[in-house]
Amino acid sequence: MNHSDSVGIVVPQSFAFDTPLRLQNGSILPHFTLMVETYGRLNADKSNAVLVCHALSGHHHVAGFHSPNDKHPGWWDNMVGPGKPLDTNRFFVVGVNNLGGSHGSSGPLSTNPFTGKAYGADFPLVTVADWVNSQAMLADRLGIAQWAAVMGGSLGGMQALQWAIDYPERIRHALVIASAPKLSTQNIAFNDVARQAILTDPDFHGGHYADHGTVPRRGLRIARMMGHITYLAEEGLGKKFGRQLRSGSYRFDYDVDFEVESYLRYQGDKFADAFDANTYLLMTKALDYFDPAKAFGHNLKAAVAGTQARFFVASFNSDWRFAPERSQELVQALVAAKKPVQYVALQSSHGHDAFLMDDTAYMQAVRIYFNNIAQEFGA
Amino acid sequence: MNHSDSVGIVVPQSFAFDTPLRLQNGSILPHFTLMVETYGRLNADKSNAVLVCHALSGHHHVAGFHSPNDKHPGWWDNMVGPGKPLDTNRFFVVGVNNLGGSHGSSGPLSTNPFTGKAYGADFPLVTVADWVNSQAMLADRLGIAQWAAVMGGSLGGMQALQWAIDYPERIRHALVIASAPKLSTQNIAFNDVARQAILTDPDFHGGHYADHGTVPRRGLRIARMMGHITYLAEEGLGKKFGRQLRSGSYRFDYDVDFEVESYLRYQGDKFADAFDANTYLLMTKALDYFDPAKAFGHNLKAAVAGTQARFFVASFNSDWRFAPERSQELVQALVAAKKPVQYVALQSSHGHDAFLMDDTAYMQAVRIYFNNIAQEFGA
Repeated sequence: MNHSDSVGIVVPQSFAFDTPLRLQNGSILPHFTLMVETYGRLNADKSNAVLVCHALSGHHHVAGFHSPNDKHPGWWDNMVGPGKPLDTNRFFVVGVNNLGGSHGSSGPLSTNPFTGKAYGADFPLVTVADWVNSQAMLADRLGIAQWAAVMGGSLGGMQALQWAIDYPERIRHALVIASAPKLSTQNIAFNDVARQAILTDPDFHGGHYADHGTVPRRGLRIARMMGHITYLAEEGLGKKFGRQLRSGSYRFDYDVDFEVESYLRYQGDKFADAFDANTYLLMTKALDYFDPAKAFGHNLKAAVAGTQARFFVASFNSDWRFAPERSQELVQALVAAKKPVQYVALQSSHGHDAFLMDDTAYMQAVRIYFNNIAQEFGA
Repeated sequence: MNHSDSVGIVVPQSFAFDTPLRLQNGSILPHFTLMVETYGRLNADKSNAVLVCHALSGHHHVAGFHSPNDKHPGWWDNMVGPGKPLDTNRFFVVGVNNLGGSHGSSGPLSTNPFTGKAYGADFPLVTVADWVNSQAMLADRLGIAQWAAVMGGSLGGMQALQWAIDYPERIRHALVIASAPKLSTQNIAFNDVARQAILTDPDFHGGHYADHGTVPRRGLRIARMMGHITYLAEEGLGKKFGRQLRSGSYRFDYDVDFEVESYLRYQGDKFADAFDANTYLLMTKALDYFDPAKAFGHNLKAAVAGTQARFFVASFNSDWRFAPERSQELVQALVAAKKPVQYVALQSSHGHDAFLMDDTAYMQAVRIYFNNIAQEFGA
């Protein structure tokens, strides 16, 4: 981890909140915890703070390493660090594990104060708007009245958009990358299959698998394998694996014939060993439910009419799960509402995962955008 | 079932073969059975026979009804019948359940002569080439030296192509619809997830679920739900279901929120109750393994160089599982090999399933093509 452009060793911080949080489903979280990492320094007038929101399987560990021997940096380490597109020499960057997560924030693995046991399946289904409300409380705690920017890809981009709608005065820039103003029917369908794989796993036990000493590994594995295919593009998959056979000839059984099978099963196994199933379920629901135009008569232009942020919207041509057309819907609504928006239609063979990758034009576009933001506060 | 354009009540016939069939995996089926339906009449010089090959979940029951109260006709009843595009007043049409199927032909549900019990998982992994060989034996039995045409969609189209390559003198026309000369990496990946869902279902028992009195229903259901999404297009799914909620508002639990979830779960349940898991597994393997160019140095032009059939190739613009580009690969190879081919690029919102649907231009194109074939033998 000896990288001069790394934020280096970072220590997660836990923030406890005792103010009750009213959730969109009508229930109340009497108190909750958010697990947070920060990189860079908040400047004197607190004008350089950037919130990085995570997607389905992300968390607060955005950049840097947790120990000198840590092999894997944070999930967006290529984007965030000294001299990187989101430059921690100039910006104070905040990463947060969302409510319902399983990486230290209140979620299914936390203790339910009413029962003294882990919430498990009883943790409420939180929404993007709930997350944004909890993030606003975090901003208050950090003394940040207004974010220089809120940024995210996929489900993270939805949070950036929701911030601009719900807290127009607290966000100067919204970076919405490889995202959509709402999921398509096909996306909802894929999410439901993933959930059904988990819900019908005999080790799921209605979400109380911890009480039974089990983990719905099979379901989680299948959900991830399927999800993983949809995050990639045929172009990238084809280039990487093609129809390459592991042993050179067909096996005529159900063991690994094609290299892509080996890769997918490995991804599924790894995820099933590391990720909490209840969190996976509720994250997919937050995706499905996200639809800020719904409260505005299904009129997206009306939904963004009150925003004050400037928008950066980016899409990737091979991303079929969050296709460029979906980003363009948002751009068109913003333009119709006379809101400032910069849209970048990027080329990549990486599909939806492109937002995590290093494609040059993408990195350059984000870098330039943050350079311009930095000039606003003279950094 | 009172339709003047229906073939009416049909009776499946079982054909037993005692000649050993050598399979591509090296094993031998000492004897086997094929379940068959025929429609129309074979003409005097036996020049009007058309073989209809089925796809992943199909069978021999292509058209007509099995009883006066039968609610559902055969799977391609819109295509095959008196006055229909494949007109049974002029053609003698043969439908066959492929080897490894679970609708009466030898397959996992048949008795293994070596054990006296059902094959289950021990039924050999048959390939498209194996099917074509068994279908050639059926043609011999029916006295058909040469098919006027072999026709199929998806995996069925692969059989038509294989016929043209393996038995050039026995097929005058190959209709290859919504198919591909080989699966893409993404297709193989989806198939493997489907298989893993079944193989890891605790009720699968290594494929010998019958011995355990179980059915790997969960896995089969998930496989079908996922498959079903990929056979449809977002355009069609969006038109039909959009983000329509069953109860008008979000439930905040994992029961049915969106109508598309209800639809998919229903499709999954229906399939899991009706289809044999071992057959599903081996059919997906036949898809994965199909790659006729492999034996010709991965040169498709070389693979089709010996064909004598005229080709009809059709693709649908919204079919992303077997995209138009994949049909075009075949067309380009045929053109390069100076083979006669008619290619129809059709518009449809039905995705891969379009080959089973009634889109007007599609039906018209097939009708005209068969009209021209009929003129060859003066019908």
